[in-house]
Parts: sequence; structure tokens; C-alpha cells
Amino acid sequence: MRMSRYFLPVLKETPREAQIVSHRLMLQAGLIKQASAGIYSWLPMGYKVLRRIEQIVHEEQARAGHLAMLMPTMQSADLWRESGRYDAYGDEMLRVKDRGGRDMLFTPTAEELVTDVFRANVNSYKDLPLTLYQIQWKFRDEVRPRFGVMRGREFLMKDGYNFDLTKEDALHAYNRHLVTYLRTYERMGLQAIPMRADSGPIGGDDTHEFLVLAETGESEVFYDSQITDLTFGDREIDFDDRAACQAVMDEFTSRYARTDETHDAALFAEVPEERRRTARGIEVGQIFYFGTKYSEALGATVQTRDGDSVPVHMGSHGIGVSRLLGAIIEASHDDKGIIWPEGVTPFHVGILNMRVGDAGCDSVCDDLYAQFQTAGLDPLYDDRDERAGAKFGTMDMIGLPWRITVGPRGVKNGVVELTCRRTGEAEEMSVSDAVARIKAIYGGI
Amino acid sequence: MRMSRYFLPVLKETPREAQIVSHRLMLQAGLIKQASAGIYSWLPMGYKVLRRIEQIVHEEQARAGHLAMLMPTMQSADLWRESGRYDAYGDEMLRVKDRGGRDMLFTPTAEELVTDVFRANVNSYKDLPLTLYQIQWKFRDEVRPRFGVMRGREFLMKDGYNFDLTKEDALHAYNRHLVTYLRTYERMGLQAIPMRADSGPIGGDDTHEFLVLAETGESEVFYDSQITDLTFGDREIDFDDRAACQAVMDEFTSRYARTDETHDAALFAEVPEERRRTARGIEVGQIFYFGTKYSEALGATVQTRDGDSVPVHMGSHGIGVSRLLGAIIEASHDDKGIIWPEGVTPFHVGILNMRVGDAGCDSVCDDLYAQFQTAGLDPLYDDRDERAGAKFGTMDMIGLPWRITVGPRGVKNGVVELTCRRTGEAEEMSVSDAVARIKAIYGGI
Repeated sequence: MRMSRYFLPVLKETPREAQIVSHRLMLQAGLIKQASAGIYSWLPMGYKVLRRIEQIVHEEQARAGHLAMLMPTMQSADLWRESGRYDAYGDEMLRVKDRGGRDMLFTPTAEELVTDVFRANVNSYKDLPLTLYQIQWKFRDEVRPRFGVMRGREFLMKDGYNFDLTKEDALHAYNRHLVTYLRTYERMGLQAIPMRADSGPIGGDDTHEFLVLAETGESEVFYDSQITDLTFGDREIDFDDRAACQAVMDEFTSRYARTDETHDAALFAEVPEERRRTARGIEVGQIFYFGTKYSEALGATVQTRDGDSVPVHMGSHGIGVSRLLGAIIEASHDDKGIIWPEGVTPFHVGILNMRVGDAGCDSVCDDLYAQFQTAGLDPLYDDRDERAGAKFGTMDMIGLPWRITVGPRGVKNGVVELTCRRTGEAEEMSVSDAVARIKAIYGGI
Repeated sequence: MRMSRYFLPVLKETPREAQIVSHRLMLQAGLIKQASAGIYSWLPMGYKVLRRIEQIVHEEQARAGHLAMLMPTMQSADLWRESGRYDAYGDEMLRVKDRGGRDMLFTPTAEELVTDVFRANVNSYKDLPLTLYQIQWKFRDEVRPRFGVMRGREFLMKDGYNFDLTKEDALHAYNRHLVTYLRTYERMGLQAIPMRADSGPIGGDDTHEFLVLAETGESEVFYDSQITDLTFGDREIDFDDRAACQAVMDEFTSRYARTDETHDAALFAEVPEERRRTARGIEVGQIFYFGTKYSEALGATVQTRDGDSVPVHMGSHGIGVSRLLGAIIEASHDDKGIIWPEGVTPFHVGILNMRVGDAGCDSVCDDLYAQFQTAGLDPLYDDRDERAGAKFGTMDMIGLPWRITVGPRGVKNGVVELTCRRTGEAEEMSVSDAVARIKAIYGGI
């Protein structure tokens, strides 16, 4: 994309409404614009990041054999009355009457509707296991929406639901989700720690939240420092192998890690003192096993091999997709702006033309731009006739991980400058070396 | 995808609620399930088609330099009061009060909000031209939702908005959209004819609807038969070249083609009698130029080169993304089921194992499956232990354009059978020839 043709409204002033850095930077870098309280429009660059995050979520769910679908945002109240949650949900549920006077609501979550899809179509143990998920907009009418997309009212969520014959099968699905989530967050450049959590209004026995450590996190967390040494990496997991999934679960949850909601001071005291940590964390996902709570309420049963009819065991599993932009920025920025991890960056590399109109600079920039596009990469080319300072400021603010600066002196010597946004390290090299380096960096992602 | 692990609830009975064939087939083939009146869940295979359609729309918009963004579904009533449409819109607008008692609505279209994004960020002619678009869920509270996704209440729409300095620039944007739409529909296997239309509640001077001819269309249409001979094909268009875009516009709109709303019997009579046609059509898109209607109402102005402040010229341009599934099926089916065009098919090829458990058949099917996946294609492998009749029935119903049948006799002779869903023609060939044929078919798309 050429910046002269892009819509990238970088703000010069610091937006006053932003209390946390991710909210401020998302506004300043032109990623979002508030539409009304807790509700945002995603401007082109913010939308690109959102799509990259969605894509990672889809890829990792597909790897585990989970099936993507899509449920509507507007749902009838009837199903929610059947489950008993219509009255229980409280004021956070956005309630609507349609023109026929029927009670509807903007989905805050979809256990009821997905269970209805299941009960209408599945009758036999032979069709299990089954995990359906969606990435869809949700609404929670927060009384005090704040922190930008971190605690908005309309937000994008991945919500997945497993249907299994037995508790053991459902716990395998639970483990499978933990594995997919670990890899999902790591691909986004995040360390998200699974912590024992409280089940809240969904209900359930087993639940873990995934928390990203950040000073601005809304939860206080307590953990054994050994847990931050764990990484999932690029292990190959056979998702049908129960022992393998269980081993990952054990590895990542055997050390103490809890939020303030489930913190147990006595247990925490058993962690060697030098490894005890308290910090703040941002919740970016949660997995639940809740057994037959919804299948019993809604009559979602299957026939077993013996011909008995039994309610299915279920769980639900969420990732806060739009919130992740905020969490990533909280975890990865400096005083100049955002620093996107390579996995989610809106553009793979920035090209800075230091003298637009100079035949040499223009030609090298055009060449770089074309080469990156041919390689399937997405460059952002600052071809504007602006001061160098403004160009560097914009690039730093929007936080592309790599930048190539093309100036007349370098062009004369046959070199460009490749700069890493995170470290600030810059290196002169030939155009072909710069292209090769960028290709190598993204080839491994 | 292996069918044994897929969620594909093909219905045996004909759903009684379906009045038109696309609605019936979408329910029978397990693409959608009704959630409430005029509101559907998209089951995994339906969701895959929806995503393929979205992808084509994105690619064609990107080609013209239009920028993807995303606006929220829930909007404040304030902006709609500013434009005067809050009261004017009538009962089709889903109106909501949030917990704070503020008037909100589920967006039926987004002229107001996108104009607000524009006016907050763009002040100069230098930032024009600009076209922003989104693919987002909309809601229109139809009094009688019917025909499945063809006239639903919650529906997915691509809506794009151009901002230009002058009327001439905006008409170029209008032409650009016509060109992108022609290619978009053709890539989906549809012939969509631009017809002069009525502007309706959006308002505006110039507007064309795109109609797909189908017996079940809601509009009566009148046209010169020469228009159905036109195809856009794979011409390369420079979208900055005004004359080139205008030439396409002229080519595709100079012959008589109107809906009943704008039909002019006297003009139609000038078409030579043997070329006069009347038929029914399904509207799948519409482009508008409406000048300064919204920019004046909402104060969206820019400074010209001379320092004057002028309201921008705008247009809006829509594609009914979810409705397109219905339109495609109306235009492409037979009495056995759907026939997907290659451009939007949920899976590129079906693999039918006629004797699951037979080592030879299993091995050939596994090999085919692996080869297609390696080639970046998406096969659906019917590995279920079912009767041949049931397997053929399912494949015909779900309508994958190509099917490879693997039976024990053929395996012995080193051949499989490749069948075209549209023509029914079947041909025996080696596994490697079958793979090569499928790769060649999709290589050109």
C-alpha cells in the first residue's frame, strides 16, 4: 500500500479520553475511532490487524479439527428463557423488541443457540466428538465502558463449544483447547498464562483464564515465576492423542498461577519465596468445562452405543479477538508508539522514501515495493512529500516491526538502511539483501 | 476435510417452510439453520461459502484501491437524527435503548457513520479520492421475512462509500464500482446485469442495480437481449484511467435494461422486437451517486486548492453478500441439488470411497486427499461407511463441482472416475491425471 493512497489518520494530539496506553496509541495511530460509548469503528489499519488475529485463530482451531460456523448477533429470547439465563443475565444483556413485539437480544455469548443447532441435528454418539466455533461480534452493555477496545460494549469474540459423549471426552476437548490457545497467543507474540479461574455466570467445574502480564491489567495475579519460562514453541501435537494433550495441560497448569478471584494464600505460600510473583494481568481468553448444564436444560441428548439417551457433555472456550489488539499493544510498545509483533503486524515492512521526486530514491522504493508484493508480503510505502521527521514519527507510531529507509546518499552507494523497530538497530545493506532478510523473517512465521 | 469428522447435517425430508428452491436446498444441504424469523445460523459448509464470497469481494475491492474497514452494528441514533433519517427510516429500522436509556439502532446501512469518520479525519482535497468499504452484518426488520437468506432480517452486506472533490471525480468512483462489481459477480459464476434503478430511501441521481436473472426473482425486468452476450472476462483495467472505466460503463449500460420501477415502455419499444426480453431478476447489488446529500447534512467538507471549503461528493455501493448464496443457487442447481460454481464452492473436489475398509480404496483415497491438500486445494473426503446411494445423494445435494469416485474395480485397474456435477459426464483416468485435471481447473480461477 502506498501511504499517499491510504487512509491513516495519525493524530498529532494525545487523545484526552484515553486512560491507558493501548487506547491512546490505537487512537493516535489511526486504528480505531470511537462511534459511541464503548463502541468503535475499525479504520483500515486496525481492521487489518483484526483480520490477522482472526486468521491465526482460524488456523489454530482448524489444526485441532474444530469447525468454523457463524451464529447471528440478534437472537430470540425464547432459547434464553429455556436455559434460565434470560432473567439471570442482568443489565449487561442488550434487550430489544422487534417490530412484532417479540423479545430479542444482542448475543453476549452463544451456549443456547449452539446447543439448539446441536439438538436439532445430532442424535447419535457416532457424530461425536464435535466442536463448533465462531468469530462473531458480541454485545455486553457495560455500565462503564472504558480502556478502548479492552472493555468495550460491542466486541469481537471467538467462542467455541465442544459436544462430547462423556466427561472424559469433554476434558480431552478442554485440553485440546488449552493447547490451541497456547499456540494462538504465542503466534501473536504474546505470553498468555493459563490461570485457574472462577466460572462466573457461565457456570462450570473446570475453567482456566489466559492472562497477559501488563501493568494496566484489570486483575491481580499470583504465580510461580517458573511458569514464565514455559513456551509452547512449534511442537507438533496430535490432537487425537489424549496423553499428549494432557501432558501439555499438566506442564502449563501444575505450577501456581491464579487470579485474585481464586487466589489461595496458603497454597501460594508453598511456592519457594524467590519464585513468588504478584503482578497484574489482562484476560485474553478462557476455557470452561461445564458438563451437562446446558444440554440438560435444552434437551441436547444423544443415543449411546447401548441405545440409552444421555445429555452431552459440553464446554465453551473464548478468545477476546478485538480486545487482543489492546493487550498486544499494552505488552509491546515504547514511548514512540506501537511495536507490532511480526505475527499480527498490519504491514510486514515499511519503506521510507527520504526524497520523493528524486529519480534514484523513487526507483529503489518502487523496486522494493514490487519485490515485496511479488513475495506475497504486504509493504507500506511512505511516498508522501513530507519532512523526514514526520515520516519517522509516523512509522514509529504505527509500529511496523521493520523499516527500510531509502535516501539519496545510500542510493548512490547502492545501499538502503534496514531498521528494527523494537531494538532501533539499523544496518546498511544492498536492496537484495534487505529483501532477503525480510523474506527470511516472515518465512518462519 | 473428512466427512466423518465434519458437521454436515443433510436433511432427508424436504423442509416445508421453504417456498423457493435456494431456501430449500440451503436447508437440505446443511448450509444454514433458522435461528428465528428471517435470522439464520451459518453451519460450517454455508460459512465456508460465505467466506469465499467475502474473499472475492475483498480482492476485487482491493484491486480498485478501495480500503476495507469495519463499522459497528450498534450505532447511536444521534448521527441519524443529524441526517434526518432516524424518523424517516420507518419500522424496518431495529431500534434499541441501551441500559443508560440512550437511543441506538442496529445499522441497516452506514452513510452517516462513515461520513462521521470522514469529517473527523479528512480536511483537505489532498486526501481525496477516498473509498472506504466494509463487509458487516446489517439488520432490516422486514415485516414478512421470507425466502431464506434472500430476504432475511440479519444479513451480511458489503457497503462501500466514496468521497470525492467534484461530481466528475465521484462519477469516476461510480464507474470504478461498476467495473469491480462486474468482475466480482463473474468470479462467482453469476451474470449480474446492471439496470437503471430507483434510488429509494438513500436518495440520489444516478443508480444502477445488478440483477441476476432467475424465475424466482422479486423484480420484473425488461432488457435488450444483447446485454446477456456481454462478459467482462479477465480484462486488465487501470482503475485510474477514467476513459477506460467510462468505456466499460457505456458498454454495459447503453442497452436497454430496467426493472419495473424504472421501466419506460416507449423507450423499450425502440429496441428491435426480436431482442426485447422480459424476465424476473434477483437484486444482488446496487451502486449510487448521491452527491452532497450526506456531506451537507453532516458537514463533511474539505478545503480545495484555492482554500475554499466545499462539501464532498459521495456515493454508496452495496453487494448483498449473504443473499448471494441464495442467488447463486437459484441460478445454478438441478433436481438433485446445488451446483456450485468453481469460484465459490465450499470444497474444490469430493472424494468418494466406495468401499471403506478396503485397503486399496482407502490407500488411493488417502493419497488423493493428501495430494490435493499439498496443492493448496480443499477436498471433502466421504470416508463414511455408508451405502453408495446415500453417498452419491449427499454429493449431488451439496453440489461440489467435481467428484472423484474410488471403487475396488477401478483401483485394481489403476483408475478412478472423475465426474462433473454440472454435466454429469464421467471419465476414468489414473490418479495422477485426476489430480492434474483438478489442479488445472482451479489454477485458472
